[in-house]
This record gives sequence, structure tokens and C-alpha cells, in this order.
Amino acid sequence: MSFTKIPGGVTAPQGFKAAGLACGIKESGKKDLALIFSQVPAKAAAVFTSNKIKAAPLEVSRRHLSNGVAQAIIINSGNANACTGRQGFDDALQMAQSVAEPLKISPQDVLVASTGVIGNFLPMVKIKEGVKRAIQSLTDQGSSNAAEAIMTTDTFPKEIAFEFEIEGRRVRIGGIAKGSGMIAPNMATMLAFLTTDVKIDEPFLKDCLKRAVDSSFNTITVDGQMSTNDMVAILANGMVGNKELGLFEEALHLVCQELAKMIVKDGEGATKFVEIVIEGAMSQDQAKGIALAIANSNLVKTAFYGEDANWGRIMAALGSSGGEIDPDKIEIFFGTERIVVQGVGIPYDQDKVSQILKSPEIQVTVNLNLGQAQARVWTTDLSPEYVKINAAYRT
Amino acid sequence: MSFTKIPGGVTAPQGFKAAGLACGIKESGKKDLALIFSQVPAKAAAVFTSNKIKAAPLEVSRRHLSNGVAQAIIINSGNANACTGRQGFDDALQMAQSVAEPLKISPQDVLVASTGVIGNFLPMVKIKEGVKRAIQSLTDQGSSNAAEAIMTTDTFPKEIAFEFEIEGRRVRIGGIAKGSGMIAPNMATMLAFLTTDVKIDEPFLKDCLKRAVDSSFNTITVDGQMSTNDMVAILANGMVGNKELGLFEEALHLVCQELAKMIVKDGEGATKFVEIVIEGAMSQDQAKGIALAIANSNLVKTAFYGEDANWGRIMAALGSSGGEIDPDKIEIFFGTERIVVQGVGIPYDQDKVSQILKSPEIQVTVNLNLGQAQARVWTTDLSPEYVKINAAYRT
Repeated sequence: MSFTKIPGGVTAPQGFKAAGLACGIKESGKKDLALIFSQVPAKAAAVFTSNKIKAAPLEVSRRHLSNGVAQAIIINSGNANACTGRQGFDDALQMAQSVAEPLKISPQDVLVASTGVIGNFLPMVKIKEGVKRAIQSLTDQGSSNAAEAIMTTDTFPKEIAFEFEIEGRRVRIGGIAKGSGMIAPNMATMLAFLTTDVKIDEPFLKDCLKRAVDSSFNTITVDGQMSTNDMVAILANGMVGNKELGLFEEALHLVCQELAKMIVKDGEGATKFVEIVIEGAMSQDQAKGIALAIANSNLVKTAFYGEDANWGRIMAALGSSGGEIDPDKIEIFFGTERIVVQGVGIPYDQDKVSQILKSPEIQVTVNLNLGQAQARVWTTDLSPEYVKINAAYRT
Repeated sequence: MSFTKIPGGVTAPQGFKAAGLACGIKESGKKDLALIFSQVPAKAAAVFTSNKIKAAPLEVSRRHLSNGVAQAIIINSGNANACTGRQGFDDALQMAQSVAEPLKISPQDVLVASTGVIGNFLPMVKIKEGVKRAIQSLTDQGSSNAAEAIMTTDTFPKEIAFEFEIEGRRVRIGGIAKGSGMIAPNMATMLAFLTTDVKIDEPFLKDCLKRAVDSSFNTITVDGQMSTNDMVAILANGMVGNKELGLFEEALHLVCQELAKMIVKDGEGATKFVEIVIEGAMSQDQAKGIALAIANSNLVKTAFYGEDANWGRIMAALGSSGGEIDPDKIEIFFGTERIVVQGVGIPYDQDKVSQILKSPEIQVTVNLNLGQAQARVWTTDLSPEYVKINAAYRT
């Protein structure tokens, strides 16, 4: 095996510490403030939401990344600091400053992220007091607490780390994430923070991150439908001192994909993990667009919840996706069972399909039989529980 | 009043009869076959789904409309006759023939529509037997039965008729419809059938119908997201013998809007009727796109179900709509209460807003403060009941 799964999350790589605690933003008293710190300045990159309305911390983080270096990330949950105008921006700046001073680093080297309710100002007194305690409690075992502190409607913390070798040296890459698996039109915030001790140039780190996000988080969420706060950031502190990059990019993809899968599996009210594969499309963009159209159809999602082999709803979603299709060429498979040929349903093994639909993980493959391109997206079913969670979330 | 609401639905205009009965397509034994008949050939026009996968009856109806004349419409519910290939097309043709022969009209003058589950072949023996009985039971009181027979998940039949005057003569226009109020990404089938005794040329009738559909049914459903079976058809039998058209087009808009409102109010599991108004947009297309992005957000819809003034979700939907916006110029109103100014929440009368959100009809207005264009869409909230209905629909 090239990659070994190891414990430790964002604190698995050399030189990283983390903390997570409750500072009183959440009325429930649950953890709501996380800090990640590298003992040396790290090359840093981030991908931000494409939503035209961006939360204040994203703008602060974007500015602080202009030199490609960062040393700490401060994150709060329970309040998105979005749609908060000038004061929201100042608050996000102050969050960075409150971290920088005691750690004796530049505020410019602190990234800031928030998740939670839109439109309320941050309780800055609580946050500043929380930051002090977070700095005191930074440890190289702190990843789990940090993963817990960035949760909102998440039902479990998400962290992962892998180890691999470059030039005979041990390299590690770790990550924590939060988010709901309901892809667009949900727009619940998705956050991920990655750390690694690999030595890498900042421009290349940025490119690698972009590609990794595209093949992971962007297969569960649509660019045009991201929340105001979505952000994926990485710190690479170079402590391994490697010269080549070896399997680094593959490892980064792996970490991002594992975190993305956890997010989908923790989808609000989800009872199924559904993989939609489009084959035989005219282009990869077309394939992805069509896959997302199916994944985003409430009718398709409720059919999965009902464990119903309702391929007609998949056909309807295909036809309305805007992608190039020829109805008479479409093949649909549930798992390995082919149930539609040339756009028409065929007799199939009902017991086998029923078994497939009862399983917690379902794969649907659509072959358009038009070209060579393919794409894959991950989604969940839509359950009554989803509605209950999102109707009650704020109150 | 220029227009008087009258009973009678599609049989209110002179010379129209209708019938609706159970022929055994639905296992429940509920009505599933409807017939509308004009005693003289009528000018006819229709608007069909933009879904690239079109059900067989739509293709048959499109061909039968090539001469702009029709005299009957046969509709079944419980089976969409979609994704049924060559046999589905032949079955739809046979439906037209089975109506034409006993009525001694050309099969070319019969339109065909279906709604229900995709992918099953029609039970043609039952349908042919049903058509015979439907012809025998045609009456000028038959509209309600027909309205009932086209229902699927609808909880009430939808029919309406208005009367007005042209050149001192009484003109009538009536309609029946079926459909769920959940707009895209739902794609539940929407059908509407309209009758009038006005005298009108076919090309102009077609134009009028298109415009009326755009300002009614298309404000509750998106072109790119229609079902495989959506269809709106009109028969104008000319029995009034008018020369001018007077207020005909206005009356047609009124009938379509009233039916569209009924569809929204009967939204699957809906507890609220929600009107989204976008003002101050750069163009009408932009305004409509932005309104639909808000109306289609599951998070916005669940917030309405929860009677929660969660304007942050509206902001997030605005930002991801792809439409032109300036976050710092956005104003949001719930009813008449302004709650967001320049993109930031302001203190508002909580009791008043709470009252507004508790009401069964809610209006949300967003002023983008960029241009002069505006648009309005109608939608519903998203309730746990919606999921239950759609998870259980087929089984």
C-alpha cells in the first residue's frame, strides 16, 4: 500500500497543533471554536465559495493569503458572520488579531473561517476569551476537538490522515471537515482544513488543491450553488524537507475524497449514500451537469428514500438537465442490474434490484452511449428527517 | 366587472361536453380517464414540455395539431406512457383512434395526454373499453368528472370558467388542470385543458396560449425542468361567431393564472402559498431566474415550513442564482416589513413578521436596486409530508 491511514487528523503531520472548545456562541454549550497552528510559517492556499455573497471571514482569509503564507487558522461555528457588512469584516479581522498577538505571529498569517446562522454579529467578547483558552490548550492531539468544534448540523466529527513516503522520508497529510451531504439546492456550508508537512511551492500547492477539490468536494456540491461561507484551506509547513513531491498530489486527492464521502454520509436526514455515474457523455462537463441534475432531483432522492426502483424519475431528470442526450440510446443500471435499454424499461430481476435499493450504498449508472466522457457525483436520499432538521435549525 | 366567474369548467363554453370515469388503470379504482369533446371542429393549439424526453402522447398530439384543428381530447391518469418506445407511440395513436371512430371524426382531430408513472405500457384493453363508456357519458355537465379523472397526487380537482362579452355576445372560457405545486426540481406532471366558444384564428390562438402559459404555469415551473408529459392545450370552437377578440386574451390569462394558483396551493405536502417578487433587476429574465433560485432552494422552503424568518437562506440563494446582484444593495421584505437593507439585517417588528410567517399566504419581495425589471413566481414550502408522498407514490 502506498498510503497508510493513520490517526491524528490535522495534527498528524509534524509541527501542527490544534484545539477545539466551547466559548459560548452556541446556546447548547457545545464546542464552537477551533484553532489550527503550525510551529513554523507554512505555504498556504485556499478555495473559496463561488457564491456572489461571501461571508466576511472569506474576504479576510483571501487577503491574508495574498503572500501565500499562513501559520494559523481560527474557525468558529454557530454564527456564519455573513451579511454582516463592515462590522462583520472588522470582527473577522479582530479574530485574526486575537490569535496572532499571543502567538507572536503576524495577523496576516492567520486565516479565518465561520459557519452557522447568517445575519448575526459575532459575540466578540466570548470569542476573544475563547481564543485565549484555545491557544493555551493547543496540543498535537487536538485534531478531534477541532473537528468537533466546527460542526453545525453534522452528527459526527470528520477527520482523516494518511502517511506515505517521499525519498524514504515519512510524509503526512491530514484534514478535518464539516458539512451536510445534501448537495445543491441545499447550500449548507462546507468547510475543510488540511495540513501537511510536505515541502512544496505555493503556486503548485494552490493548483493541487484546486484539482483535489474538483475531484472531491465539487462532486458533492455545485459551484453555482455554494453557501456564503464554503472554504477549503491547506497549510504545508515543509518540515519533511523533501525535494520531489512523489505521491503528494494523489495523497491530497485521497484525503479530500475521504472527507467528501464522510460529508455525504452525514447528509442531513440521509439514510442512503448514492453514487451517480454518467458514462458515454459528449464531454466531462456534460457528464457532470447531467449527474448533478439527477442527484439534485427531489423526486429521484425521495424515490431512493422509498427504496423504489423509479427509473422514470431518472429519465425525467436526464431530459430536463440541459445536457446532450438521445432518449433512444439511454441505458440505466441499478448496481450491476440493467433496467433500461434504448430508453425503455426491460424486465429485470426484481428481488436483486430490491436488495440493491435496500442497501445503505447505492450506485446508479447511466450510459448515454453518445461519447467517451464520464463523471461521478455523490449524493444522498431525501428523507422527512431532512425537512425537520432544516425547518427547526434556527429556532 | 369585465369577467364573471361561472361554474361549468371546460363544459361552460357552448358546444362542449366532457366525461370522466374509472377504467381500471389506477389500482385504487379512482377515476383515470377523461374526455373533452366539441360538437364542431375547433381551432386548437398546445404548449408541450421542454424536457428532451417527451412522452408518446405528446408526439401524437403534436402531429395531430399540424393542421391547427381538433375536436376531442382524451386523457388518462395513472400511467404516463413515457419511455415506452415504439409501442407507447402506437398505444397513444390507438387511444386517438378509439375516440375518433365512435364519434365519427378523424383520428387526426383527437389530442392525447397522459400522466402517471413513467415506463409502463398502457393497459389498452381497459382504456378502449373505458373510452366507449366515456363517449356514452359525455354531457355538458361533465367537467368536474373530467377534472377528477386527470388527478394523480392532487388532493382536489381544479376547474374554473369565466364569462365576458364581445360585441354584446356572451363568450366563455373554461379549463381543468392537474399538477403539484412543487416547482423544479420536482418535475411532477402539469396538465391543463382549456375550452372556449370564441371565434379566433389558429396562429393567433397559439400566440395567445404561449403568452398566457408564460405568465401563469411557467411562473410555477421552469422550462428546463419540466416533466416528460407536461402539456397545455386549448380548443376554440368559434360558436360565438364574434368578429373582434375584445378581452379574450386577458380572459385566457386569467383562467391560466387561476389554474396555476390552484396547482401551487395543492402542492404536495404544502402548508404555505409563497409569492416571491424580484424588483429592481437588470432584466426580466434575470429577475425570473433569481426568483426561481429562491423558490427552488430547499433550505428556503423548509424555513417557510418552520415559519422561520431565515432571510440568510434567501441571501445565500440570491448569491448562488447566477443572476446579477450587488450584495450591498439588496433589500428584503416579508410582507410589508423590511428586514434587510443594503444586504444587512435590520431590527424589525418581530411580532408582525411572526404573524406574516404564520399566515397561509406569504409574500417575499427582494429589491435588487440595480435596474427596472421585475418578476414574480409562486411556490410552496417544503414539508415532511412532501417527502412521504413522493417516497410512497409508486408503491
